[in-house]
Amino acid sequence: MKKYRAVIHLTEMERANLALNNVANLLNDLGEEETEVEVVANSEGVRALSKAGPFVERIGELARRGTRFVVCARSLAALGMKEEEFVEEVEVVPTGTGELVKRETEGWAYVRP
Amino acid sequence: MKKYRAVIHLTEMERANLALNNVANLLNDLGEEETEVEVVANSEGVRALSKAGPFVERIGELARRGTRFVVCARSLAALGMKEEEFVEEVEVVPTGTGELVKRETEGWAYVRP
Amino acid sequence: MKKYRAVIHLTEMERANLALNNVANLLNDLGEEETEVEVVANSEGVRALSKAGPFVERIGELARRGTRFVVCARSLAALGMKEEEFVEEVEVVPTGTGELVKRETEGWAYVRP
Repeated sequence: MKKYRAVIHLTEMERANLALNNVANLLNDLGEEETEVEVVANSEGVRALSKAGPFVERIGELARRGTRFVVCARSLAALGMKEEEFVEEVEVVPTGTGELVKRETEGWAYVRP
Repeated sequence: MKKYRAVIHLTEMERANLALNNVANLLNDLGEEETEVEVVANSEGVRALSKAGPFVERIGELARRGTRFVVCARSLAALGMKEEEFVEEVEVVPTGTGELVKRETEGWAYVRP
Repeated sequence: MKKYRAVIHLTEMERANLALNNVANLLNDLGEEETEVEVVANSEGVRALSKAGPFVERIGELARRGTRFVVCARSLAALGMKEEEFVEEVEVVPTGTGELVKRETEGWAYVRP
């Protein structure tokens, strides 16, 4: 288990750029050997992880540094989006809120950019 | 003590619909026998729990599933609102921030929709 | 170690007034002998802690009650701001997100006004 573990809650498309900056800063500041990060996107925030979005390269780069990206299946259904529309590093979880609560219950820190 | 405990911070009226969706998703995903949820409303977010608001039925339904709803007394005073204006399931706490910090100190997860 | 410890995440200038109200409410509600508070500002939120901003007096007052105020060095660089532009009680940390994750890992509660 790494020393630092953090979930980053991405729930507003317009805050996605900031959220990805925050992840990179976190890995640089605390050290990626010491730090495990998971980005949990729900509601409109899931759009930021789409293949059609502007962040494909940055998501790939952060994934190569060990960051996990997940999207909420309920949000996908509500927005009429399909798993294939997302960057390949992205995984689907049953609900974003459930994922956040499970991680925090395991001791992960929560940050909402 | 339930396996999962979460405070949902409702501080923006325009995010209330999402917050209530998040609560329902959480109960469905993690199971309501396993999950205790408290919605803590402060600032403009308290308006969402008013009898005059659009969420009366959904609040009642979530309360019947065990969700607790609380509003910040300081926010009520600042907005000139009275306890009687809120849905009957709603309780008043001295401050929303104090309530959140107390719950988190007890180990509850925090989610800010 | 105090009974309650909380980081307040200030990341939007327009929510700074609310964030400072939340800090004062928290100290009043839980008692300042029992409560340690740190305000972590990043992104546009750092502007609220500037000497040129409208909150100089309130920051000083909360600092005298024991609240720590920190700003993210990466955000300062991105905004072209210098440490001297901030209220004297403000300290610079390498990253706001790193500071939040460190504090939460130490057991501090997180609130995002």
